Amino acid sequence: MNKLKNDLFLKACLKQKTERTPVWVMRQAGRYLPEYRAVRAKADFLTMCKTPELACEVTVQPVDLIGVDAAIIFSDILVIPEAMGMELIMEEGRGPVFPEPVRDSASAAKLKKVDPFKELNYVMEALRQTKTALDGRVPLIGFTGSPWTLLTYMVEGKGSKTFSVIKNFIYNQPKLAHELLTEISVVASAYLSAQIESGADAVQIFDTWGGILSPRDYNEFSLPYIEMVIEGVKRKKHPVIVFSKGAHFALKKLSKSGADVVGLDWTMDIKKVRKEIGSRVALQGNLDPTLLYASPERIKEEVKAVLKAYGKGTGHVFNLGHGIHPDTDPENLKAMVNFVKTESVKYHK
Amino acid sequence: MNKLKNDLFLKACLKQKTERTPVWVMRQAGRYLPEYRAVRAKADFLTMCKTPELACEVTVQPVDLIGVDAAIIFSDILVIPEAMGMELIMEEGRGPVFPEPVRDSASAAKLKKVDPFKELNYVMEALRQTKTALDGRVPLIGFTGSPWTLLTYMVEGKGSKTFSVIKNFIYNQPKLAHELLTEISVVASAYLSAQIESGADAVQIFDTWGGILSPRDYNEFSLPYIEMVIEGVKRKKHPVIVFSKGAHFALKKLSKSGADVVGLDWTMDIKKVRKEIGSRVALQGNLDPTLLYASPERIKEEVKAVLKAYGKGTGHVFNLGHGIHPDTDPENLKAMVNFVKTESVKYHK
Repeated sequence: MNKLKNDLFLKACLKQKTERTPVWVMRQAGRYLPEYRAVRAKADFLTMCKTPELACEVTVQPVDLIGVDAAIIFSDILVIPEAMGMELIMEEGRGPVFPEPVRDSASAAKLKKVDPFKELNYVMEALRQTKTALDGRVPLIGFTGSPWTLLTYMVEGKGSKTFSVIKNFIYNQPKLAHELLTEISVVASAYLSAQIESGADAVQIFDTWGGILSPRDYNEFSLPYIEMVIEGVKRKKHPVIVFSKGAHFALKKLSKSGADVVGLDWTMDIKKVRKEIGSRVALQGNLDPTLLYASPERIKEEVKAVLKAYGKGTGHVFNLGHGIHPDTDPENLKAMVNFVKTESVKYHK
Repeated sequence: MNKLKNDLFLKACLKQKTERTPVWVMRQAGRYLPEYRAVRAKADFLTMCKTPELACEVTVQPVDLIGVDAAIIFSDILVIPEAMGMELIMEEGRGPVFPEPVRDSASAAKLKKVDPFKELNYVMEALRQTKTALDGRVPLIGFTGSPWTLLTYMVEGKGSKTFSVIKNFIYNQPKLAHELLTEISVVASAYLSAQIESGADAVQIFDTWGGILSPRDYNEFSLPYIEMVIEGVKRKKHPVIVFSKGAHFALKKLSKSGADVVGLDWTMDIKKVRKEIGSRVALQGNLDPTLLYASPERIKEEVKAVLKAYGKGTGHVFNLGHGIHPDTDPENLKAMVNFVKTESVKYHK
């Protein structure tokens, strides 16, 4: 591993002292950047994921253009189900679709074992190239979807408002659901381990659909598999971040899941959450991504509020409470990032 | 007012002693019922709202067919913006659309004052007819959208995943947003007062989109207007229920809003919430509506869990944590309702 010139992000994840709060944002390698759209104009989304040169190029963009303190590999959580043999269609503006979703033991039986260095080697190659391109400027983050979130997509087959299909599935075929969640957990662990071996300095588990579950169902269908994934990751001091959107009821349990960092969406009170679980884990978040539609003055006001709410000392990774929206003005993100860098210094003295 | 033969719901709202826990469900007059679909086959959704005979018919259906302890008038929260002069289009399966949303002071200036007994008299007439049809069997609930939720629809113009338009609006035109929220609050108060005058025994405020706001923005753009609506309602002992979906961070404030009952979605831990705010307000909820896809055995198990979590004593109105889904088997709802009635007795001894 190259010696890192800026390791603020990793230090904050591990609650080591830093001179200021590090900042990156979810979906920072994304459509809000004209430079990203220029690459995207040449190749569709999945082709970009599978072409290491292109994935590397857009991964590095926000480091150069915005000045974030970490890069996150350009990819998608749905590469795992695809690697397991499911056809995946991604059309701009429509959201991802699995034309043949998993609904019963017959369709579940078709899923294949995955060797991350084979079926997903394009991600590993993208990480290697990005590591070289970054040349130690900032750490590189790898990621996976949580088993619950991946299963939701695999069973629903496409986006949903009510999540009727997956809920039907877990209530009426719980045994099969647990078998699949175990199978996905094994793949996700191996996938994160391979990413670390290929250069990732930290990994994040995106539990995008954790918050659609009742606390009781979360404890049965999401949490244990997040823990299984974390348990299985081969790592040294590489931090694990877990972000379970909307799962306000699960923060305490997530802080005991083995993760080093718990991500917060923008509905969480970071001050209150720090009091409850901040002794065990670092916190990541949690500015409302739509706040970047506001004026730079209003953005600064809100950055101040979030930094103040977290308070003094290390253990805070500044981020949005969700991915940045495609219609965001990059200048506003830049204003946010720069302000975090200067305003946060006083909290680390 | 007819003397009520079953006033369990009203008593529980006011935390008076009852012999068991009352139960009703949001959207109980809805598409999951074949008898509803038979009426719906003859008239579109808005025509049903505006034809008191039809609204009355479907309002009474779940009382007869399911055995719920309260009726809620068949209507829609968007009748207020329509009464204020906005064209409203409702197409099955597409969600409501305002072709000319409010986006600036010019479009805001076109909004008209509303006299509920004129523009919305069809709702009042539906309440009167329903009151007669119910003949005191169970109480009748009236409702409104919260000012924030109504403004969200009026500004977005249609459904949204990111709520970019309304967020843009409040961050960049906050003064206009507050003016509109005040205007809507006045209408909503008058509307609820008129519903009570027309026979409603209780009223509910649906803050469907409260949970998309950060706590700070909620305190600025939703909560004060909910309080303004409640403050303005002319009522005697008619309970006010407030349901702010997803606003887990606001429950304490809602318990001090003037409401008698706070509704909980299925992600809330009703035991924990009762500990925090149960001395001030009754609680309504909160079984996951998708749980009704499960077997009657599993449904009973979960009803037990919710009743046990709330615990002994009055102040619990059993409900789902969100509207019932159209693809629910009515038999499963009936199983839920019947089980609540028998299982809850022991908590009231």
